[in-house]
Amino acid sequence: MRSGHSLAFQQFEDVLSEITIQAITGIHPDITKLLQSSFSETDISSTKVVAPFKMEWSAESDWEPDDPSEVSQGSCLILPIPDDEISGTLLRSVGYAESESAKSHYRFLNDGTFVLTTKYEQSIAEERIWFASENVRCRSSILRTSAGSGILQTSFASEVRRIQAP
Amino acid sequence: MRSGHSLAFQQFEDVLSEITIQAITGIHPDITKLLQSSFSETDISSTKVVAPFKMEWSAESDWEPDDPSEVSQGSCLILPIPDDEISGTLLRSVGYAESESAKSHYRFLNDGTFVLTTKYEQSIAEERIWFASENVRCRSSILRTSAGSGILQTSFASEVRRIQAP
Repeated sequence: MRSGHSLAFQQFEDVLSEITIQAITGIHPDITKLLQSSFSETDISSTKVVAPFKMEWSAESDWEPDDPSEVSQGSCLILPIPDDEISGTLLRSVGYAESESAKSHYRFLNDGTFVLTTKYEQSIAEERIWFASENVRCRSSILRTSAGSGILQTSFASEVRRIQAP
Repeated sequence: MRSGHSLAFQQFEDVLSEITIQAITGIHPDITKLLQSSFSETDISSTKVVAPFKMEWSAESDWEPDDPSEVSQGSCLILPIPDDEISGTLLRSVGYAESESAKSHYRFLNDGTFVLTTKYEQSIAEERIWFASENVRCRSSILRTSAGSGILQTSFASEVRRIQAP
């Protein structure tokens, strides 16, 4: 369940999504490709990537309730590249706020909350992810203009894990 | 703007609220009363209270859109009693999840996020409050059963500050 808040217009958007997360094992050609396109330097080898995964989503918004063809879906590849135990870089083949690949900075707060900051061309997104329980995850995001402190929108997701049978 | 997520029923609630926060200066009789009712020990003096304030709210939910008399409103007194620089007790004359006075534990995470934990009779609430910018504040809450790890509901608020003329 995800709610979007458009602050300027005081508009709510309520979205129901299914998200699938799958670990990637072995050296996948897409990993090499994303690494090459994300770094001009060639010193990032795929061996620095820890626990890469693929995320797929399918979302239904209350802004388009009458048109089931408007289910938005997509997938992206996510590559964590730790600097140390608590921070690093995260590469995504498709960004969250804009449809381009994204290089984010991440860090963990002292209670384990994961904070992800992404600079896009027009905006900066800050996401926070934390576990409410073993199988319930919360995810908030704040989207601000890259030129200044204006907050464009916020969102909040409550996510319930369904363990897939192997 | 506040969104509630009822996880079991996958229901969204969207709420527009006005919140007024006012510092309380001087020794107010309500402070003494709340201190006395909250602690069986008599060793909490009002001098340990730092920056007490009064909060008033008026909320309009999309669950009752046709009945303006259903605007919910109320007010409470909030008394922070620090243990140290980063944690302490917070007393509220009316609780968030249940209509009784509440004694909460608070702590600050290392990025300044304020985390408030309140045990009610039937439930435990965890609230997180952080600033997205000087005048935009985010507030999330998770309500769980006190007997176990079941998550009943979550909520998220995006709050825009309006400075009152003095």
